[in-house]
Amino acid sequence: MKTHIIVIVMLLFTLTVKGQLVYHDASAFPLLGKATQSTATRYERLPDSLRNISRKPLWELGQNSAGLAIRFSSNSTTIAAKWEVLLNRSMNHMTDTGVKGLDLYCLQDGKWVFVNSGRPSGKVNTATIIKDMKPEKREYMLYLPLYDGVTSLSIGVDSLSEISQPSIDWPIRQKPLVFYGTSILQGGCASRPGMAHTNILSRWLNREAINLGFSGNGQLDLEIADVIANVDASMYILDFVPNATVEQMKERADKFYTIIRSRHPDTPILFVEDPIFTHSRFDQRMAKEVKDKNETINAFFQTLKKRGEKNIYFLSSKNMVGHDGEAMVDGIHFTDLGFMRYSELLYPVIKKYMK
Amino acid sequence: MKTHIIVIVMLLFTLTVKGQLVYHDASAFPLLGKATQSTATRYERLPDSLRNISRKPLWELGQNSAGLAIRFSSNSTTIAAKWEVLLNRSMNHMTDTGVKGLDLYCLQDGKWVFVNSGRPSGKVNTATIIKDMKPEKREYMLYLPLYDGVTSLSIGVDSLSEISQPSIDWPIRQKPLVFYGTSILQGGCASRPGMAHTNILSRWLNREAINLGFSGNGQLDLEIADVIANVDASMYILDFVPNATVEQMKERADKFYTIIRSRHPDTPILFVEDPIFTHSRFDQRMAKEVKDKNETINAFFQTLKKRGEKNIYFLSSKNMVGHDGEAMVDGIHFTDLGFMRYSELLYPVIKKYMK
Repeated sequence: MKTHIIVIVMLLFTLTVKGQLVYHDASAFPLLGKATQSTATRYERLPDSLRNISRKPLWELGQNSAGLAIRFSSNSTTIAAKWEVLLNRSMNHMTDTGVKGLDLYCLQDGKWVFVNSGRPSGKVNTATIIKDMKPEKREYMLYLPLYDGVTSLSIGVDSLSEISQPSIDWPIRQKPLVFYGTSILQGGCASRPGMAHTNILSRWLNREAINLGFSGNGQLDLEIADVIANVDASMYILDFVPNATVEQMKERADKFYTIIRSRHPDTPILFVEDPIFTHSRFDQRMAKEVKDKNETINAFFQTLKKRGEKNIYFLSSKNMVGHDGEAMVDGIHFTDLGFMRYSELLYPVIKKYMK
Repeated sequence: MKTHIIVIVMLLFTLTVKGQLVYHDASAFPLLGKATQSTATRYERLPDSLRNISRKPLWELGQNSAGLAIRFSSNSTTIAAKWEVLLNRSMNHMTDTGVKGLDLYCLQDGKWVFVNSGRPSGKVNTATIIKDMKPEKREYMLYLPLYDGVTSLSIGVDSLSEISQPSIDWPIRQKPLVFYGTSILQGGCASRPGMAHTNILSRWLNREAINLGFSGNGQLDLEIADVIANVDASMYILDFVPNATVEQMKERADKFYTIIRSRHPDTPILFVEDPIFTHSRFDQRMAKEVKDKNETINAFFQTLKKRGEKNIYFLSSKNMVGHDGEAMVDGIHFTDLGFMRYSELLYPVIKKYMK
């Protein structure tokens, strides 16, 4: 009789606890996508040493967590998250889920598969990302917000389940890919963080990717070249033309390139043309701007070739986002359709040349 | 001397006026995408007679302007818009531009080409959609918000330009396509109104499309079958499974079908399966729900076939949004990537069978 009562009490306890979630601070788990560990707080992209050196908007964009991701494994039937964002920003041409939400992927049969997004409700957020799963151990990657900062993050799992360090070093962290660029590169306007093309390519190439996209501020600031050069990369992808003016390119592109090249003589460096913005079919001023910028970057690349620079590559934007004109939300920023098409164009090029 | 002064004054006047926009109420131009003209205000989808008959949430969604579009032509170098929305709604997994913005397309070489979106700022909005165009006469289509209502709309053009009725009846308005369904069909979560699949297919098939998607409320309400049956359509696409429960389908699918079929004995009717929601790879409850619903709609379709119903078709969701799991923002609602893939699947089916 006494044993029966103990069994019943234990059963009731188990059933009660089963529906409960326990939150674990994400600081216990590996964080991918950082160019430097010398940041003021964990979920930032630029070293604290640049705080009073970089232009203010550039520095502040370094606090956005674009391209950062937490790796963990768990056998929980539910995965939830609590997170607080820095700015609680909203934009009218991008979802809040992309701007300040989370995005969970799971490794299945050697591929990273979308599980679900963590949809934000404000500055402080709690979201169940997925539930009703079989209690099997899985490898997870949780992408952080693209256009806001993260001041705290914890991951919720069933109270009776386990959450632990990743069992496998995927995406491979040696020799990451380093992407430098603009608002588009920062992930504007992906519907959720996993659909920024730097994150898509990281999954497809099984390699850590570092996102140094700075909305409106991919203007060849030379201290960023130094941040880039501090990473022992498999490839550097320089995709700054949408933000850099013709004058800035003429003045700084060679200096920017030389800072990286002088420290990495053999690492492939890929230059990318300005996208053919969809509204440039109609907007003559925009058409001229794209043409002028692309003539400038082409001429710069030819100069590098003529003086004998090796391991440099050039990507034309001719087929960047297809030819139906449908891949952008505002004529400039890519939708998930645009990011998928751009990834399909970049993938074979990076795969072929990366070290 | 006097003549010179007059010429100079006229020149100054012209230069001043050139930069100014004049707004024209959109009520002067054709409105596409309505199942009925008997609405309380112009930019609604359901007849006023249903105001006290339909369930409240269904009725209110009828006030969303999903699938409605204004046709006009103009030689203006700038196209702008002023519009006021009914609710000023926001959602965390869809852009404001899709929810309550505008989307402009232009006919070029027989194809509708994306010009740019009108991005909203609140309840009352003014936006320049495109500028710096050559002053050539063009045919335009302006899509209205997907998830909000429109209480007023005017189109801004250069004060010295012309805005006029469309020169060509494209998309063709005889025998429109009628789509009935859920939040996905209403356009959740397209980045801009033109990327809802009903609007994509209207452009590709050069045929007016009527969007009777009601978020969460595609539950086979029989008065909606009556609204549908009032349209002399080229094809009826019934895409309600994500919202209708197994019980609702068993109780009402045949009645809903019969209301339409009894008035249109030969018009093709296409039934569409529940999408394989991406998170159903992980969420067992969701996987079972999708399976049960699809068994129900399959069984219903077989019943129709067995009793000799003609001109009915069935679309499996197997290849609906690809197989990489990337086409949804929250496991359920389609991104532009999902809508593009779904349109590519639907296009040949509709093209083959539509009258």
